[in-house]
Order: sequence, then C-alpha cells, then structure tokens
Amino acid sequence: MKNSNLSGRGLSGTDYFSLDFVNDNFVFLNQTKLPLSEIYIETESYDRIAEAIERLEVRGAPLIGISAAYALALSLKNASANKTEEVFNSAVERLSRTRPTAVNLFYAIEEMKKTFSTNKDSKDIYSVLLKRAKEIHNEDIEKCRRIGENGLKIFRKKSTILTHCNTGKLATGGEGTAFNVIKTGFEKGLVEFVYADETRPLLQGLRLTSFELEKNSIPFAVQSDSSAAALMKEGKVDFVVVGADRIALNGDTANKIGTYNLAINANFHNVPFYVAAPTTTIDKKIANGDEIKIEFRSKNELTSINEQKIAPETYSVYSPAFDVTPAHLITGIITDKDVYFFPYNFLNE
Amino acid sequence: MKNSNLSGRGLSGTDYFSLDFVNDNFVFLNQTKLPLSEIYIETESYDRIAEAIERLEVRGAPLIGISAAYALALSLKNASANKTEEVFNSAVERLSRTRPTAVNLFYAIEEMKKTFSTNKDSKDIYSVLLKRAKEIHNEDIEKCRRIGENGLKIFRKKSTILTHCNTGKLATGGEGTAFNVIKTGFEKGLVEFVYADETRPLLQGLRLTSFELEKNSIPFAVQSDSSAAALMKEGKVDFVVVGADRIALNGDTANKIGTYNLAINANFHNVPFYVAAPTTTIDKKIANGDEIKIEFRSKNELTSINEQKIAPETYSVYSPAFDVTPAHLITGIITDKDVYFFPYNFLNE
Repeated sequence: MKNSNLSGRGLSGTDYFSLDFVNDNFVFLNQTKLPLSEIYIETESYDRIAEAIERLEVRGAPLIGISAAYALALSLKNASANKTEEVFNSAVERLSRTRPTAVNLFYAIEEMKKTFSTNKDSKDIYSVLLKRAKEIHNEDIEKCRRIGENGLKIFRKKSTILTHCNTGKLATGGEGTAFNVIKTGFEKGLVEFVYADETRPLLQGLRLTSFELEKNSIPFAVQSDSSAAALMKEGKVDFVVVGADRIALNGDTANKIGTYNLAINANFHNVPFYVAAPTTTIDKKIANGDEIKIEFRSKNELTSINEQKIAPETYSVYSPAFDVTPAHLITGIITDKDVYFFPYNFLNE
Repeated sequence: MKNSNLSGRGLSGTDYFSLDFVNDNFVFLNQTKLPLSEIYIETESYDRIAEAIERLEVRGAPLIGISAAYALALSLKNASANKTEEVFNSAVERLSRTRPTAVNLFYAIEEMKKTFSTNKDSKDIYSVLLKRAKEIHNEDIEKCRRIGENGLKIFRKKSTILTHCNTGKLATGGEGTAFNVIKTGFEKGLVEFVYADETRPLLQGLRLTSFELEKNSIPFAVQSDSSAAALMKEGKVDFVVVGADRIALNGDTANKIGTYNLAINANFHNVPFYVAAPTTTIDKKIANGDEIKIEFRSKNELTSINEQKIAPETYSVYSPAFDVTPAHLITGIITDKDVYFFPYNFLNE
C-alpha cells in the first residue's frame, strides 16, 4: 500500500482491502465488479465517494459509515479557509442523500459534524477531521479483531464451517464479524473447510464471501442456499456462523434472509449455530424479535440477476431483506466483549 | 390448435402447451426462452426433436420420453417403404444419444422398438407408430388427471400452497403432478394463493412454474428458496406440495435439491408436506432413500446464470441435483391411485 497510484486492477498476490486512506487519498475496491474483476479506485473527491455509496461500489453498513467519514474530511482537503463551513455543509448534505436508511451512515455524519463544530476555527481542520475519520475506522477494526479472538472459544476441533451472506472485510472496516471468526480460526489451524451459501437474491456469498475465502487461501465451496440441509445430513458441517443486522435483548436476531431457514436446519441436524456481531448490534430498545420491522426489497432483485432480466417484472415477488431467528435456535452469540449463550440477557452489556 | 402453422410466438390468450401433435407435425414450446418469450416450434424432423431434447428446449423426464416416441414415429412419415428399417434404426440411435441418463427416454424408445418389430411389415407403419406414441402420451395425461383428482382429498379449506421446482404441463405430458394438485384444487375454488420457490440453481420455479401459474390465472408470488421458512413463520402457508424423482418402498423421496430443506422447515412449523407423483415413480427395487445415488451437477449451473458468468469457474461448488427427504417428514404421497400416509409400504402397489 505504498504505491503512488493504487487505482486499477488488483493488488499484489492475495492482498486486498475494501477501503483505505493512502497518499492522502481515499481508495476503495469497486464491489460491484467482484469477483470477476478486482478494481481499486483512488479519489480525493467527496462527491465520488458519495457516488460509490449510491452505486453500491462500497456497501455494508460499517463500510458506508467509514467512507462517509473520510469523504467529509476530504471535502476540506483543498478548501480555502474562508469557505470551510460552506463546503463542509454541502458535503454533509451530499452524503446524507446517498443511502437514506443506513444507520451507520448517519452515526458517522453526526460524529464528523460534532468534530467540525468543536474545531471549526482550527488552522488545520482537514487534519482534525481526518483524525476523527481514522478513529471511526480504527474502532471498527478493533471490534472485528476482538470478535475473531472471542470466536476461537467456540472451536472444539479442526472444523468445517458453513456461513451465509458476506461478513468479511468487504462488509466491515476491519476483518469482519462471522468471517473473522472463520479467518482467525483458520490462522490457528482450526478450520478444515468452509461452505458458503450463495445467498439469494443478491448472491453476496457467491460474489463476495467466495472472493474473500480465496484471497485468504481458505479451502471452500459455494452452494445454493437450499443445499445446506443436505450437507448437514451428510455430517459435513461442524458448526454454522453468521452475522447479524440487529439483535434484540432476548437474543432474537435479524439477519440476511435465509438465516432463519438455516438455523432451523442446523437445529434439526444438531449442528451448533452461532451469530457473530459487535455489541453495538444489540438494540436495547427492543425486548424481542417481534419488534423488528422487516424491510421488503425491490422485486427486480429476484427477477433480474446482474441487471440481466430473467422473468417479467409483472410477477409478484415475496422478497424480505432479512428474517428473524429466535434466540432458542442460536447456540451462542460472539461479540467483541465475549461469547454469550442461551438464555440471552443483554441488559447489562 | 387448428392453426395451419403453429410455429412462432404465443398462442391466443392464456392457452399454452409443452408439446402436441398437430397437422401431422410435432409442435413444442421452446422452454429455454421462458418466461420472457413463448415460442412454439413445429417440425416433422426427428433430428430437430433430438436437438430440442439436447438443448433442453424440451425437458422434464415424461416430456422427453413422449417427444422421443413422436420423433420415432415421424422418422417414418416420409420414408420409402424399402428403407423403413434403416431409417428407424438411425432415428433410434440418434434419439438414444440425446440425454443418456433419462430413464423415461429409454422406456419410450423400447416401447417404440417393440411396436416397430411387431408391425414392420405393415403397409402404414408410420400410422401404427404414431398411434403408439399417442398412447404413451395419453397414458401420461391420464396419470396426471388422476393425481389432480386424488389431490383434492388433501384440501381442508381454501388454501395457500407453497411449491418447489416445476411439476406442471412443462414437465409432464399432461397437466402435471404437484402442479396439477394445485390446478385441480384451484378449479374447485380451493386455492387462495400459491408461493413458488424460485428453485436454485436452474430457477425452474421462477422461469417455469410462475409462467404456468400466470397462464392458469392462479394468484401467486415467487420467492427465494430460503424465504420459505419466514413465510411459514408468518402463518402464510397451509401446506406444501412437491413432485418426486424417485420414491423408495418406505416412502423416502428423492426430488429436486432444496426439497429436504423445505420438508424440515414445514415440519418445524407444523405445515403439512405432500409429495405428488405417478406410481411409476415408486422404485420397488430400493427399500429406502440410502440406496438412492445422488447425481452432482456441473459447477457452472451455480457460477453462471442464463449463460452469464457471475463467478470464476475455478471456484469449488457443491451442487447435488437432488436430495432425499425421509418418509417421516412427508405427510402424504398423492399418486394416480390414491393418497398414502406414513408409514408407507408400497410393496403391494
């Protein structure tokens, strides 16, 4: 990462990253081209970063927040001293419009606004903002590291693991959540093989998790989501580990559609089923999963694949973005603090 | 179906068929173009029919057999009397090469060979063979009709039904197996709504079952296979009905990959789970599902969609063509003879 220009195809060997701040520029991997092309884009334009978020070139809730923080810092990189407030406010307005429902995005924007307010008379406001963006990034890296470490506690032997969706470097600022449990285990010689659900409709498993497994030289195969039961019946899965979008106080967990289906299958086959997420994913305002509102996705996520139309858009589609797995189907929840077991009570966390 | 030329796009209104014998020609619907285009092809060439089977323009085990029977009859439509044996043998050889593992194909070819042997000195051997092909076709139509009728016994009320893969007119010579349970129920006012699993990897649910549901004006939605559990949790599914590739004497059932996953989910949610298939699907040579060999599919079925590459072909893939659902997860098996319940014992059927 000392190259003078990182834009372009691939890095050396198996190295990869989702985003970084290098040579005073923001560099990101264009995720829409994965896994067939690995293209990095280097920019100092906050507007280009806003575009990247809009086009899903950068996706994953933590990544979006971190990108917005860097974008807000960059907005003042070349701004004249008498225009900082005007430029910063424009940048805030621009970034806020990118993904209007992303919680991490607004958290990051608020943090950057606070830093700007407190320091707007600083001679080098750009450096102050950049420092705060890097802190936000580093906090996420550290959380991922701890999840990976705590995850080591769940291994009983060298294991074959099944996972769903993407929870690695491509979804977080660090090495991932569930993916980092796998990666940290692999580095300790505890991972035999990984099965990755392709994860319909958007195929994050086939496109992103496979890419990350290959980059880390972890032996893997990808399968259709409905094959998981057959794999478990054959005794091929030692445990399942997935990420989480939101966890209720009782441990009920909302995650990518298909997670609940997988938990039922794991339960039927007595395969341990783990969730890995930062403690910030625990929503203390909700007692149980019934209070989690399910977002429904656009029908063309099912009727088109990579913008190629498969079926008429007149067809009705049932396409929830996520489902809720009840706590009693979850063997353990791995966070940056510890591993928790059923019955869960996160009130004092 | 009185048109002088059926080739081309669509039929009037909601009419459709998978194959037919009209104007002394074979007419088939090119299934590879569904559901975006509905194109019928009319031919008297057995070689064109062989091509259609190879290219999956005609697919589904019973359909392949029926198509081969018509093709063998057509081989003699314009053959000179002194060449019938030579031409017929060439046609047998050509058809045998199309889908080497299709059991129904070889059953149909054997039947046609027997008819040819017995009648080869007939003045109108073409008509004799055509009559036998139509019999083979009509036997399948009748089996489907009876499955639909027997299926009426499982309805307790106007129901919402979930199904997997394609089991309708596009897979059989008649109105289908599981699909005809739905269709016959719908005609009696017993079907409220149908949820169709998209059925990865080949998307037969999204491409074919949706097409058939729409043609029959049955209200439906399509969903990713892993959403079925969420649907059941919401109480939206009254029962599941699927087809079968092979049924063991104890009722263990091999069917399209994902069926076992679905049966476990139905069991978890106390949703009745039915299988519908002709009695010929019961393999009396196998005592239970452990004896059923699972075929694995080519990895590009997962890494490409409609010939568009999604992921590198270097990725490893776990892609069984079907899975085996144990009999104890199956509420009932609907055949052309009756509806059977667990514990199954098909020895005397």
